[in-house]
Amino acid sequence: MTLRVLGVDPGLTRCGVGIIEVDAKRVPSLVSVHTIRSAADAPLEQRLMIIARGIEALVDEFQPDAMAIERVFAQNNVRTVMGTAQVSGLALRAAAERGIPVALHTPSEVKAAVTGYGSADKAQVGAMVARLLGLDAVPKPADAADALALAICHAWRRDAARAPASTSPQGLTPAQRAWRDAEKSIRTPRLGR
Amino acid sequence: MTLRVLGVDPGLTRCGVGIIEVDAKRVPSLVSVHTIRSAADAPLEQRLMIIARGIEALVDEFQPDAMAIERVFAQNNVRTVMGTAQVSGLALRAAAERGIPVALHTPSEVKAAVTGYGSADKAQVGAMVARLLGLDAVPKPADAADALALAICHAWRRDAARAPASTSPQGLTPAQRAWRDAEKSIRTPRLGR
Repeated sequence: MTLRVLGVDPGLTRCGVGIIEVDAKRVPSLVSVHTIRSAADAPLEQRLMIIARGIEALVDEFQPDAMAIERVFAQNNVRTVMGTAQVSGLALRAAAERGIPVALHTPSEVKAAVTGYGSADKAQVGAMVARLLGLDAVPKPADAADALALAICHAWRRDAARAPASTSPQGLTPAQRAWRDAEKSIRTPRLGR
Repeated sequence: MTLRVLGVDPGLTRCGVGIIEVDAKRVPSLVSVHTIRSAADAPLEQRLMIIARGIEALVDEFQPDAMAIERVFAQNNVRTVMGTAQVSGLALRAAAERGIPVALHTPSEVKAAVTGYGSADKAQVGAMVARLLGLDAVPKPADAADALALAICHAWRRDAARAPASTSPQGLTPAQRAWRDAEKSIRTPRLGR
């Protein structure tokens, strides 16, 4: 049984949209990734319409089982936060109109789920997304990688919420376990070979 | 020639929508006023869908020549500002999809246009809206009165922007002139009769 999740990293200049699937073993794979753009010198209402139509077209094309959107905080970058909030509202409505379950995740939740660290930087998130999806290169721009990270985060959290706790030792996501194992191997002195 | 303006005071719990017309002499009259509500305990995406559908239904019913929406600032009430911004984005998109010109006005601009004072309180705005529209009572709740004030502000500012400066002494709106005249009459000592 696969679960298809569409993640949205809301933005007015660049809005990342990433679609992934996870299989029964929680292994994620890439379905598609997009960046919707609007011109910075266009009127605000035109920009919002362009971004909203772009999100809706991708939702209708890829028919996700669930949607995940980055939670925007009022304390974020004051210059851009209003546009980001407006785009998140348009994405939330798009989900509601189609009856698609939707959730908000904070950047910390996404980083923790995908890299094991809530304060990971953009480069770490991008590298981990590429590794998890078996991609040759990190998806560009960062908004696209973030949208994929959101979708992966949601798939794992959703899955974890339904699975018995025992299937996920210490409540770790697969990436967190991989990170923990990688750290262990680094910290263990290699004695000869 | 009349101009019909639909004003939106964006909000998630209560969204005010007011429709007015101004005639060639800039005299405003009430067309309709509404408050769209959503339940505070409903999921965010459902609330946004309900408010957006409500705004769109009123726009389609009343076919305004222009729309005016209150400009939301990141510095506003942090608890509610995200929802307010999201609703403003939905209203902006509704205008863009229909090709209706739309503008944002700050609360100070609206207060100054309608009452003559940029720092007027809600009661003053409500009282002046009732007087300007010839209503027996102040529209309730305040969101409804604010939406009407926005629409009046927009009609007058739009009008002022197109009219030769000489038609509006000192660049005052009709309400500002009325206020100035009222103040003069109060300050002039009445000498018996």
